[in-house]
Amino acid sequence: MKIDEMKIEDLHPEEFIKQKVEEISSIVGSGLAINALSGGVDSSTVTMLAHKALGENLKTYFIDNSLMREGEPGHVISTFKKLGVDVELIDARKQFLDALGGITDPEEKREAITQTFYKDVFGLLVRETGAKYLLQGTNYTDIEETVAGIKRQHNILEQIGINTEKAYGYKVIEPLIQLRKPAVRKIAEELNLPEEIYSRPPFPGPALAARVIGEVTAERVEIARKATKIVEEELSGTNAFQYLAILHEDKVTGVREGKRDYGSQIEIRCWDSKDAKTGSPTRLPYDTLDRLAERMTEEVAGVVSVTYNITQKPPSTIEAV
Amino acid sequence: MKIDEMKIEDLHPEEFIKQKVEEISSIVGSGLAINALSGGVDSSTVTMLAHKALGENLKTYFIDNSLMREGEPGHVISTFKKLGVDVELIDARKQFLDALGGITDPEEKREAITQTFYKDVFGLLVRETGAKYLLQGTNYTDIEETVAGIKRQHNILEQIGINTEKAYGYKVIEPLIQLRKPAVRKIAEELNLPEEIYSRPPFPGPALAARVIGEVTAERVEIARKATKIVEEELSGTNAFQYLAILHEDKVTGVREGKRDYGSQIEIRCWDSKDAKTGSPTRLPYDTLDRLAERMTEEVAGVVSVTYNITQKPPSTIEAV
Repeated sequence: MKIDEMKIEDLHPEEFIKQKVEEISSIVGSGLAINALSGGVDSSTVTMLAHKALGENLKTYFIDNSLMREGEPGHVISTFKKLGVDVELIDARKQFLDALGGITDPEEKREAITQTFYKDVFGLLVRETGAKYLLQGTNYTDIEETVAGIKRQHNILEQIGINTEKAYGYKVIEPLIQLRKPAVRKIAEELNLPEEIYSRPPFPGPALAARVIGEVTAERVEIARKATKIVEEELSGTNAFQYLAILHEDKVTGVREGKRDYGSQIEIRCWDSKDAKTGSPTRLPYDTLDRLAERMTEEVAGVVSVTYNITQKPPSTIEAV
Repeated sequence: MKIDEMKIEDLHPEEFIKQKVEEISSIVGSGLAINALSGGVDSSTVTMLAHKALGENLKTYFIDNSLMREGEPGHVISTFKKLGVDVELIDARKQFLDALGGITDPEEKREAITQTFYKDVFGLLVRETGAKYLLQGTNYTDIEETVAGIKRQHNILEQIGINTEKAYGYKVIEPLIQLRKPAVRKIAEELNLPEEIYSRPPFPGPALAARVIGEVTAERVEIARKATKIVEEELSGTNAFQYLAILHEDKVTGVREGKRDYGSQIEIRCWDSKDAKTGSPTRLPYDTLDRLAERMTEEVAGVVSVTYNITQKPPSTIEAV
């Protein structure tokens, strides 16, 4: 199935919402649909659209895959409670970490996360709830990059020929598939989602697993989580499109209190971009870079070195893995 | 043996040279001494001091360990020919690469280079020439860092208790051991060495092996060599203390012509420093960083990502490995 982009200049948010709510209603009928909310703009928008369409017939889950940012599960759930949407927390931390053990190849990591998410965790929820429909926030850039072979998005299945009904027992509905990120933000704003959601920088599906080069373990995710918190505290005031901290597997030599300290390196990326299709490193002031390096090496255990990525996309991508 | 620093403000270059020339003469007597010249300020200064002291009784070698920069062996030899010093080229590329095969730990790499240099290559030259003395450019910062346990300098032996006469069959003379780099530069200038030598940024002993994280192979050294050339072309006009390009072992995702390209990352470091004891990343203009990233990703095969190190020393060190 060929999907056409709906360009932001052709988008009428109110009309789009009305149409999608009707579509979701008519597809799901009187059945039950479920969806996973991560707190990102895509899944938040889908949650609100489906909530409008289905009310009590929508079950929304927050899957704690151990790869979330600090405090994220509680914060997202309470934000949606205020919006009248009940979200159930599923603690799947052990399942994801077990699935990721020993894997270093990025595509295999994505595959492990996809399998755990769709098959193990959602499979169980589907069986328990009897839901036949899964709503999901796949957007136009996701399918474009996957089809082009740049990277496999964890939430892209039908486009690469996987029949979810057959493979996992449910059908996937993707109401945002024709929109790029800026258009999704418009819809989110129109749906009265809070600004922290509709203007939130992207934080892709594999979450902190995408911020760890090499094996994803509880300890290494914790380092990436702390580094991510610092980057977000220091850079949320910029107008950057996205900012991230990546834990490298390569070790480098450092020195502490006059002694050799062979430790870790954190790479920081901060992107100026309109649509994630192309991007440039934000020209952050050196005082900001100094502060980032100082905080990383003082607050994150084992970090002796910090870099800033200076490559354009292309040939870089936004994320490292 | 405790070594005291001779501070630059207490240094009288002419007097220092006179004294060291006499010392070298009196130690070596009518015997034969050999030394290895890399073209750096330390070994160049030692070569000139020993040449003044010993004339024909000094044999100077340029050891091509396969870890040199592009065109370096030929350029160094012709520079010294103009200064009246004959330098013999020793092709030891295979020996060094064989010794480095399969090793990824930085200290083991240093050890492999040390062993190959002192034992295999110099051992043979000593036996062939009958020389009993090796002159070498160890400076005060080298011993300070080694004794402190930060990193093992390849040219530091007696300070860590290795008896070179017993281990390798020759005695080491280190005329610059009380001087830090800026003082060595003063001596080099006073000796009429060309400015490209006396103001040359440091390029430490393990050479490009220190610029490759992970295994040192001919192919990976070639990538580091190309990246180093670009960094030197772009940054030689700055007043930076030292600038370097490091090939990482970690792979990152990139995109070329719309297709995924899982490739290499180059890290660039550029230091403001007086004496290598402490340092700050040079605040290079973003236009310069852009150009560096563009050249690296276009001119060096397999490179899809470039970073700039933003860490202070300490806790970073100047080099990565």
